[in-house]
Amino acid sequence: MTNIREIARLAGVSTATVSRVINDHPYVNEEKRQKVLEIIRRLDYVPNSSATSLKKGMTRIVGVVSGAYTTSSTPFIQAFNIIAQQHGFHVMLFLTDNDCGKELVALEMLRSKQLDALVCLHRANEWPIIESYTKYGPIVTWQRLVNDLIPSVFMDQYQGYMLGLEHLHARGYRRIMNVYSSKGLNTPQRMRAYDDFSKKYWLDDSGFADLHGKVSITDGERIARSWVEQTDKPDAIACSNDDVAAGLLTELKRAGVSVPGEVAILGFDNNNLARLLDLTTVHYPSDKQAENAFAILLDRLGQEAPALHTLEFELIERSST
Amino acid sequence: MTNIREIARLAGVSTATVSRVINDHPYVNEEKRQKVLEIIRRLDYVPNSSATSLKKGMTRIVGVVSGAYTTSSTPFIQAFNIIAQQHGFHVMLFLTDNDCGKELVALEMLRSKQLDALVCLHRANEWPIIESYTKYGPIVTWQRLVNDLIPSVFMDQYQGYMLGLEHLHARGYRRIMNVYSSKGLNTPQRMRAYDDFSKKYWLDDSGFADLHGKVSITDGERIARSWVEQTDKPDAIACSNDDVAAGLLTELKRAGVSVPGEVAILGFDNNNLARLLDLTTVHYPSDKQAENAFAILLDRLGQEAPALHTLEFELIERSST
Repeated sequence: MTNIREIARLAGVSTATVSRVINDHPYVNEEKRQKVLEIIRRLDYVPNSSATSLKKGMTRIVGVVSGAYTTSSTPFIQAFNIIAQQHGFHVMLFLTDNDCGKELVALEMLRSKQLDALVCLHRANEWPIIESYTKYGPIVTWQRLVNDLIPSVFMDQYQGYMLGLEHLHARGYRRIMNVYSSKGLNTPQRMRAYDDFSKKYWLDDSGFADLHGKVSITDGERIARSWVEQTDKPDAIACSNDDVAAGLLTELKRAGVSVPGEVAILGFDNNNLARLLDLTTVHYPSDKQAENAFAILLDRLGQEAPALHTLEFELIERSST
Repeated sequence: MTNIREIARLAGVSTATVSRVINDHPYVNEEKRQKVLEIIRRLDYVPNSSATSLKKGMTRIVGVVSGAYTTSSTPFIQAFNIIAQQHGFHVMLFLTDNDCGKELVALEMLRSKQLDALVCLHRANEWPIIESYTKYGPIVTWQRLVNDLIPSVFMDQYQGYMLGLEHLHARGYRRIMNVYSSKGLNTPQRMRAYDDFSKKYWLDDSGFADLHGKVSITDGERIARSWVEQTDKPDAIACSNDDVAAGLLTELKRAGVSVPGEVAILGFDNNNLARLLDLTTVHYPSDKQAENAFAILLDRLGQEAPALHTLEFELIERSST
């Protein structure tokens, strides 16, 4: 029967090297790895993966739980996937549509050791339920959460939004309309920022109703059409993200409105679209955030983890304000 | 010791239902599923996943091998993820940077039954090597390939590109410059389309050198700057994808060039950006393509598979031509 020792002998490497190749360890000399894989293929050797997993106690698979692919989750997922693979981990994606049952599938896989760890971007079940699974493996989130069992890589949206608002004020805008995304996640911090901001500068609440639940290009286009028809108009619109800002900007331009002459537009995230359309925006370092999430998981798995990045928002001034 | 029978008794359901919940079968009454999961949690029951997998012979995990997240692979991956989950399968992503070794990791996981099947979007190893793994599980690709062992959901780029070229011709453009992506994949078919097209209409090869390896917004912006400086200018530019077209369009507009007055721009894919910027483009149904890829895998896994979509390119006329 083929075993590791035989493969090592034929490939002219140590059994430790064969084991590292089989277990997909990242730091193996490429030439040796090719050699070992060639022998493995030639002998049609199938490692007993269950035995391997039991011995190591690890599958080297991390689950990412997300409600859906969104403008904000997609770059995070991509960056997380890249850093995880660099460390020899695979990523399994769970799209939950915010359904408790679908989320439990991922949690149960953590419990039954089919996953080593979980990143929970959106959650459907209550935190205490999710927390109860941390005894089976580390879980990290990007949501604002203070919980020893579930570390968070959240970024303070208050700070980021305030950066944008202060910029609008410095440019002379006083009649600002806020466009928020869903009520649940980042919005409370952003609303608090606007509240403090309007108090600080004695801006009376000018009667512009906040918009909520706006996240897409199409949402932005609709907001543009309302703006055109409004009689009492805001002179600046702070958007939930760059997609909304992009839809708003292009639809206003189609209607012949001058930006920022008649109305200024502020985006959020600093994605490709913002750069393409010269949108002023707030840079959100989701790649570094994803790398921090992975580093925390790695550390909790008892492995050597890369140092954490300092996560900071940054104002990107362009031509829409 | 806790076993399935005990869980079934406590949850008041059949053992078959418990088994379906444990194996993440999609068609389980939600209420029953919650009940079973609650009991499972209460008893802290961990199913012997290796035993389960061996018995079923399936992990319900499909691997997707991609060189990187690109404008074209990302929507495919997202759509594939969604359809797979709807059928109770999980997706594991392998980003290979077109490295043979990284690709072999996925192939080896198929061989050792850690994956049920593979989608190979980009490949690093030669096809015969990949083919040799089909005895361990089905592999499907979206690349143009005629191979009984590796079914393909490829779309004929010749047809799609010709649609775009014929449109440019009908609008009166005769001096067309082609911007292609990498030499490897879709480009040969597109080049063949242009060749036939220029012969059909007696367009002399006007000396516009084809551009190759252009895939990003930044590439498009660079092309715009060269266009402005060129003395002998094309009157239409057919782009490898919408990102290039978007970068080209916005940079030309920044330079005060009228589109399509001075030069027409044709995109490819019909992504969000194309709609936002009113780009004429060719719609590429990557979501349906991904669903077909999944259906083929499901069928080869001996499961009931949804019917295949007919995949067709479609010309989307907007204001850039």
